[in-house]
Amino acid sequence: MKISEIASIIGAKFNGEEFEVTGMNTLKSASKTELSFVSNSKYISDIKNSQARVIIVDAKTEKYVPTDSIALVVESPYWEMAKLSKYFAPCIEDDNLPEPKIGEGSKVSPRAEIANGATIGKNCTIMAHVYIGANVTIGDNTILYPSVCIYRDCKVGSDCIIHANSTIGSDGFGFATSKQGEHKKIYQNGNVVIEDDVEIGSSTAIDRAAFGTTLIKQGVRIDNLVQVGHNCVIGEYSVLVSQAGIAGSTIMGRNVVMGGQSAISGHLEVAAFTTMAARSGVTKSIKESGLTFAGFPLMEHRLWLKLQAKLARLVK
Amino acid sequence: MKISEIASIIGAKFNGEEFEVTGMNTLKSASKTELSFVSNSKYISDIKNSQARVIIVDAKTEKYVPTDSIALVVESPYWEMAKLSKYFAPCIEDDNLPEPKIGEGSKVSPRAEIANGATIGKNCTIMAHVYIGANVTIGDNTILYPSVCIYRDCKVGSDCIIHANSTIGSDGFGFATSKQGEHKKIYQNGNVVIEDDVEIGSSTAIDRAAFGTTLIKQGVRIDNLVQVGHNCVIGEYSVLVSQAGIAGSTIMGRNVVMGGQSAISGHLEVAAFTTMAARSGVTKSIKESGLTFAGFPLMEHRLWLKLQAKLARLVK
Amino acid sequence: MKISEIASIIGAKFNGEEFEVTGMNTLKSASKTELSFVSNSKYISDIKNSQARVIIVDAKTEKYVPTDSIALVVESPYWEMAKLSKYFAPCIEDDNLPEPKIGEGSKVSPRAEIANGATIGKNCTIMAHVYIGANVTIGDNTILYPSVCIYRDCKVGSDCIIHANSTIGSDGFGFATSKQGEHKKIYQNGNVVIEDDVEIGSSTAIDRAAFGTTLIKQGVRIDNLVQVGHNCVIGEYSVLVSQAGIAGSTIMGRNVVMGGQSAISGHLEVAAFTTMAARSGVTKSIKESGLTFAGFPLMEHRLWLKLQAKLARLVK
Repeated sequence: MKISEIASIIGAKFNGEEFEVTGMNTLKSASKTELSFVSNSKYISDIKNSQARVIIVDAKTEKYVPTDSIALVVESPYWEMAKLSKYFAPCIEDDNLPEPKIGEGSKVSPRAEIANGATIGKNCTIMAHVYIGANVTIGDNTILYPSVCIYRDCKVGSDCIIHANSTIGSDGFGFATSKQGEHKKIYQNGNVVIEDDVEIGSSTAIDRAAFGTTLIKQGVRIDNLVQVGHNCVIGEYSVLVSQAGIAGSTIMGRNVVMGGQSAISGHLEVAAFTTMAARSGVTKSIKESGLTFAGFPLMEHRLWLKLQAKLARLVK
Repeated sequence: MKISEIASIIGAKFNGEEFEVTGMNTLKSASKTELSFVSNSKYISDIKNSQARVIIVDAKTEKYVPTDSIALVVESPYWEMAKLSKYFAPCIEDDNLPEPKIGEGSKVSPRAEIANGATIGKNCTIMAHVYIGANVTIGDNTILYPSVCIYRDCKVGSDCIIHANSTIGSDGFGFATSKQGEHKKIYQNGNVVIEDDVEIGSSTAIDRAAFGTTLIKQGVRIDNLVQVGHNCVIGEYSVLVSQAGIAGSTIMGRNVVMGGQSAISGHLEVAAFTTMAARSGVTKSIKESGLTFAGFPLMEHRLWLKLQAKLARLVK
Repeated sequence: MKISEIASIIGAKFNGEEFEVTGMNTLKSASKTELSFVSNSKYISDIKNSQARVIIVDAKTEKYVPTDSIALVVESPYWEMAKLSKYFAPCIEDDNLPEPKIGEGSKVSPRAEIANGATIGKNCTIMAHVYIGANVTIGDNTILYPSVCIYRDCKVGSDCIIHANSTIGSDGFGFATSKQGEHKKIYQNGNVVIEDDVEIGSSTAIDRAAFGTTLIKQGVRIDNLVQVGHNCVIGEYSVLVSQAGIAGSTIMGRNVVMGGQSAISGHLEVAAFTTMAARSGVTKSIKESGLTFAGFPLMEHRLWLKLQAKLARLVK
């Protein structure tokens, strides 16, 4: 997309030489031909290390943009980024991609839909009413039960099992909101990567990243009706019990256990070998590994037991 | 359905002139040719303003029925209404309806099922394994991802996106229960209407109304795995975060925000611009707009923070 | 499977006469030709009453195995059982089974997939994109809405309704975990049985048993987005409101009511006519029938109200 078009769409001034912007990304991940944005003053410190060629900012933030990057100045960078995200979204299906490749020994139901550009490994079982989108890759020996839906550009490893009616790669819950309270969709142009030996239950939802990847690492076990928000990283061998939910951009270490109906807020870190009892609610990062928590607000499990004993006495 | 048949099915006496009852509805919404019922003494005051031609009541309530309406007297009006609801239910599919109409520029997967009587607007994308029931209407530019299911008689506006494996218009959770503890289904003969510019996540369930309409107003954003009960109204630009749940007949103003795993009981009102933190539980109507709540039982967010601080001190 | 092969797979010594092991089961349910295991010292007392021909045990437990059973001694019986479970798993689909039988008057969408070996009764409605696995039986007058998935070997009774995108018989959440934190799947070789007159909402998940049956008894009503774990028994006419969750092996009496977002831990008993308010969390068995509970930890509803009143006073 041409820089002049971009400036025009978002109503920013641009008088420099024309060039092609190849994509949109976060300050940290943007390449030298990409565009980024600063939506919040807490990210100002990321500007100087960003490689982004173009940065959308408000007037107050313009001064932090290094001289070798181009600042496009607007009133509401987040809103304008949302507006632009649509232009960088790939089409849902792309008939120009090559026919799907199916590995030896794989059984693909004639009632499954495999989009062009998809690649399925060896000895997979792809059951009826499965949807596999454009450019999706699936490893070897993986089983997709009926009505599993995998959106375009996602990757599923080898030896995985995904149960019926689960969705991999639906759009993360992202939008900008105007002062009048109207919402504008932020197109979710990232993907989901599921590594090897992962099992996912039925009617679970794993959202694609806004930028980059939502990552489910090797050996993870996810139960039914679990929500994994965009840009999360679920550490190796972690276990997410039924109806657990994780908001966006939270990063877990390995062997984290989330009990049933537990939840973690967005943008947190959870140390390896953390255990959360059923219905825990995590709102702050957990730095020390190997501990067991419970409650909402969260506390160490032994404290929670003590608190509940005290509360029980209140009504005796 | 003839009044004499109705009386016979529910075991009520009727000696008047025969006529056709055209439908079944609440006291407030019933038209002059429809039937209604009083299942609970708190609705007695609605009888005198009801236009219903026929009202099913118990013996104690008969005296409140105006002389220009017909009272059918039974022991358990709610149970008999449930029994009758089946007779007013439309068939699931109707081959006599006209072939579906698909607007110009719309891409409908050959693997989607579009029932007779459905109408799809222009430039829509209807993906594989979508089901669109009888008489459903879809506006322009709307995207339905794989395995979305829209039950008969529902309406989806323009510029909407519904993600994979979500269900619009499944039956509300309605039944009468006998003294012996057996249940009789109340057929859900209403529908769901989704206005323009609404986005709905994956594996979300929005139930059709028992009578009338479950309404999702313009600009609403609904995340994955959310439950919206029958006869709810979700105000414009409201935001329902993942795993939130709303019981039946609750009415929200505009720009209400429900955090993840929060919940609202049935038959409540929630004022515009109300924010509920994650896992809030609302059991009473919220009359004042613009406030932020948390906890279960619900309290203002600042009080909840104070309470949690006090509780934390109990175990130190 | 031959006993010598089994011993070889799990690395146990076996010098006796060769014979065929017909299946794998719990100590209580194993027949005289089956294999079982002791994974936890609390089940030692079950050994002497078990009919199992072969029992996998660790060295400490070997002495409890009666002389007419064969003990296979390993370091980690649970891990080895998980390893073996794969060999006893039936294939997902079996083309050698007879063509499906469809009863008179049943309407099966040409877009539904009915596997070989399935039997559908009379006057059923099987809608588009439904999947019915091998050996599944469906009674009469049952309605399966679009994208319902019923895994192999499950049974659904007569006069049932299952709403769109629900999954019956997906694998229970079972695995053994090594000391290094790696997981090995326990194949779920049981099934789900749904008796007559059961209604199940949309995007609900009912897991198949590890061994034996997950049982949903007559007249049960299950709402949307509900989780029922493997090996549960839901008593007659019980009501599970939206987003409720039940972990594995819990057994309920009749007419139990679970409010929205409530939960029950695994391996518990819940007495008949128990009512749990919305968001109750049950972690101990409920022995007395007819009571109403709330809260997490659970308490009688009247105590919960009292406690909440006291807590509210803390912040006034």
